[in-house]
Amino acid sequence: VQESTSPGAGRPRADVTAEVFAATLRSVHEFGYAGATMDRIAVAAGVAKTTLYRRWPSKGALITACLVDAFGPAPLLGEDRDAVLANAIRWGAERIAEPGVGAAFAGVFTDAVSDPALRGILWNELQAPYLRVLQDALGESEQRVRFVIDVAMGTLLHRMGISGEPMAADDVEALIAMVRGVFR
Amino acid sequence: VQESTSPGAGRPRADVTAEVFAATLRSVHEFGYAGATMDRIAVAAGVAKTTLYRRWPSKGALITACLVDAFGPAPLLGEDRDAVLANAIRWGAERIAEPGVGAAFAGVFTDAVSDPALRGILWNELQAPYLRVLQDALGESEQRVRFVIDVAMGTLLHRMGISGEPMAADDVEALIAMVRGVFR
Repeated sequence: VQESTSPGAGRPRADVTAEVFAATLRSVHEFGYAGATMDRIAVAAGVAKTTLYRRWPSKGALITACLVDAFGPAPLLGEDRDAVLANAIRWGAERIAEPGVGAAFAGVFTDAVSDPALRGILWNELQAPYLRVLQDALGESEQRVRFVIDVAMGTLLHRMGISGEPMAADDVEALIAMVRGVFR
Repeated sequence: VQESTSPGAGRPRADVTAEVFAATLRSVHEFGYAGATMDRIAVAAGVAKTTLYRRWPSKGALITACLVDAFGPAPLLGEDRDAVLANAIRWGAERIAEPGVGAAFAGVFTDAVSDPALRGILWNELQAPYLRVLQDALGESEQRVRFVIDVAMGTLLHRMGISGEPMAADDVEALIAMVRGVFR
């Protein structure tokens, strides 16, 4: 029996990754961050748990990779700095509102408080790349841009935690107006 | 044998509560939010797990009560609205910087995203009382004050998650200056 004729064999690796990411967000949405164990994610994705651990050494690493995929490249559109900033914050608000994304984000950050290795992964994979492109697009110092990321993402996540709902559009616009003032 | 002569008997209930709260924050600080199980907290406090569950029906309820105790009454000091706001944010920043408090806060909010019962506890015990006193002190609408709480607490917690450190004083002052603009 050739390996490529067994069921599922030869399926492109990218396809499995997409299924694992979708299963991860579904599991977090359904069971919460703590309840979305590697076991449950493996079952939901229809893969062996060893397959998960071969690619991602920990749940935190898998969640981080899943968030990088869910967010994708930051859209740095707009004719001036205010417009770029507004579009970036609206994009962040939309992403956090997607099922599972807000809870996955809040959960991995919570774990990172007491896990320096996970903090390194989060920093290298998620925070640093967005920080760099935003710094270039906004022409501001690292300290200012880090501050603005903390404000925008922190506010959106806190609202999600306290209300269980994404922030409403009028409050997102108030957030944009407030953050603009930081660069004045 | 009279019950009051057995070791530990007759110890005031408030004393046990204080020990449980201290043990809760120590456990979260040492093991992270997920690792601070009810079992570990009971061992750290030197009480039976049933004692914990008699007082607090879930880990989320215990963490919320512990945070209410750690934060205490909001200090609403200052000669005008700007001063009251600045002192409240500095107070929040100091509390979140205490060992275990930031991680406990972030963790219970993360759990609340997928747990409506916990969200009710958090709202009634923690968020609503602070919202009310801040609304009175600032003379602003509920929507504005909720927004400001999301901004201040969310920003401070996001910084803690990404850096593992509390926000530095100059960034806390930048946060205060930014939030003041919301009420102009």
